[in-house]
Amino acid sequence: MTDTVFLNGDFLPADQACISVLDRGFMFGDGVYEVIPVYGGRLFRLEHHLDRLDHSLAGIRLENPLPHSRWQDVLEELIKRNGGGDQSLYLQVTRGPARRDHAFPPVVNPTVFAMSSPLGAPAPELRQGISAVTLEDIRWKLCNIKAIALLPNILLRQQALDQGSAEAIMTRDGEVTEGAAANVFLVRNGTIVTPPKSNLLLPGITRDLVVELCARHGLPCKERPIDEAELLDADELWVTSSTREVVPVTRLDGAPVGNGHPGPVWERMVELYQAYKEAFRRGEVE
Amino acid sequence: MTDTVFLNGDFLPADQACISVLDRGFMFGDGVYEVIPVYGGRLFRLEHHLDRLDHSLAGIRLENPLPHSRWQDVLEELIKRNGGGDQSLYLQVTRGPARRDHAFPPVVNPTVFAMSSPLGAPAPELRQGISAVTLEDIRWKLCNIKAIALLPNILLRQQALDQGSAEAIMTRDGEVTEGAAANVFLVRNGTIVTPPKSNLLLPGITRDLVVELCARHGLPCKERPIDEAELLDADELWVTSSTREVVPVTRLDGAPVGNGHPGPVWERMVELYQAYKEAFRRGEVE
Repeated sequence: MTDTVFLNGDFLPADQACISVLDRGFMFGDGVYEVIPVYGGRLFRLEHHLDRLDHSLAGIRLENPLPHSRWQDVLEELIKRNGGGDQSLYLQVTRGPARRDHAFPPVVNPTVFAMSSPLGAPAPELRQGISAVTLEDIRWKLCNIKAIALLPNILLRQQALDQGSAEAIMTRDGEVTEGAAANVFLVRNGTIVTPPKSNLLLPGITRDLVVELCARHGLPCKERPIDEAELLDADELWVTSSTREVVPVTRLDGAPVGNGHPGPVWERMVELYQAYKEAFRRGEVE
Repeated sequence: MTDTVFLNGDFLPADQACISVLDRGFMFGDGVYEVIPVYGGRLFRLEHHLDRLDHSLAGIRLENPLPHSRWQDVLEELIKRNGGGDQSLYLQVTRGPARRDHAFPPVVNPTVFAMSSPLGAPAPELRQGISAVTLEDIRWKLCNIKAIALLPNILLRQQALDQGSAEAIMTRDGEVTEGAAANVFLVRNGTIVTPPKSNLLLPGITRDLVVELCARHGLPCKERPIDEAELLDADELWVTSSTREVVPVTRLDGAPVGNGHPGPVWERMVELYQAYKEAFRRGEVE
C-alpha cells in the first residue's frame, strides 16, 4: 500500500504525485515547509506551526494559499486517510511553476503539497545519547525562514554522519547557532541555556516548548548567545526537534560531554515533555 | 507548439515533463545546474560548462550521471529538436527521488533534466546601461557551487527589481562578491578589475572569457578583491553572464556610475566579445 499525499487540492497515492519540472521549488528551492508531529491523530501545536509557516511565507514574500482553517481540514483529512494514530506530517508550499526567471512570476500559482509517514517514539538509542561534531555554519543569513533550500544543511548533516556522528552543531563567528536539523540547548551548573531567536537560527516549535516547560516548572533557563568555548565545559548538551524531541548529546568532537552520559536535567525535561505529550493526547493542552 | 525537454533519458514535450514530489531537487534544493548559450546550433564553451558542472557536482558529492560525450549528444539532440539556431540551454542534475531524509540516500537515482529556449541578442536597452543597487550578500558560503538552492539570489534580485533596478551588486564584509545572477567588473583609470575566484562567488564562464580577452588583447585586467567603497569612484561598472553577456551598469544606488553612460572600455570589450562569438559561429574558436 502506498501512502496518500495531498497535492494542489487532490488526495492521491504518493507514487502518482508529480510536479512540473518548471516548479520553482524544483528550479530554485523557492518554497518553505513545516514538519508537524501528530499524536493520536491530532496535530501537535498546529497553530504554532501555521504561524511559523506564515512567517516563513512572509519571509519569501509569498501569500499563504490557504487559510489556517483550510490547512487544518486538509491535514486532518490526510492524517485520517493514512490511518490516524501517530504520524509525522510534512507540508510544503512553493512559488509554483513558471517560465524560469529569478524574478517573481507576474502571476503566481503556488504548489501546495503535504504528506505524512508513521511516527514511532524516538528511537531508544537516542535516549542513550548521540555523538555530534561542531562544524562551521555555512548557511545563508535568513535561517529563521524554514526554506526548502536545505542544501547546506544536507551537506553538514552528511559530513557529521561521515564522521560517525548523528548531528552537526553549527557555529558562526564563534557562537553556537543550531544543529543541522535541530535547535541546541546546553546545561551548565543547573542552568539550561539556548541561543536567542535571530535571523541565524530557526525558531523551533520544540525549542519553544522546552523553554515554556522550563518556565512552567521552575527550571532555570536562559535565552542568550552561547560561545563556542562553552560547549567544552557543558554538563549536558541537547538537540531538539519535533520528531526526535529532546535528545542528549553525550559526545562532541570525539570527547565526552559532562560525564559522557545523559544528564539529570535532560531526564527531568524528558519527563516533562512526555507528560505534556500525554496531556495533549488527552486533549488537555494544545 | 511546446518546447521539447530532456528528462531522465527521454525527450518529451515540456508540459508533460514532471518529477516526483519526493525528488530531492524539490524537497531540498539538492542539485546543481548550468546555463549554456547556443549560437548557430553550437554549444558555446561547452567543455568549460561541463567542467564547472563536474566541480559543482563534486561540491555536493554527487557523481556526474553522464560522461561529457553523452552530455554533448543529449544537448545537441535537444537543440536540434528545438529548431537549432541561437538558444539558451539549461541543464539540471539533482540527487533524485528518495524518502525524505537529510542524509544522502543509500542508493541514488539522480534526476537529469535539460531544456532550452530561444536566445535573442541581449536586449538593446541593456546596451544603454542598467541601474543596480548594492545589497548585503546573504547567501551561503559555498557560492562557487552552481546550486539550484537559489532562494537568496531570488530574494535579492526581486529586491533590486522592486527598487527599480535590474540587478543587485552584492557585498560581504565590505567586499564586492557578485551580482544576483552575474559577475561584477569595474574599470578605474583604464584598469579592469574583478574579484578573484573563491568560495564566495561563482566562477563565471563569461567572467573567465572577459579576463581571457583582456589578456589576449592587452587590456589591463586585475583579479583582486574590490572594496565596497571603490564602487563609488569607478569609471565603469559591468555585470557579466552567459545570456546577458557584458552589461554596463550606469546607475548604482540612484547615482550615476562615472559619467552615467556606458564607457569606452566597455565598448571595446563588447567589440572583442562579439568578435569572439562570430569566430565561434565560424567554428574558429571553442
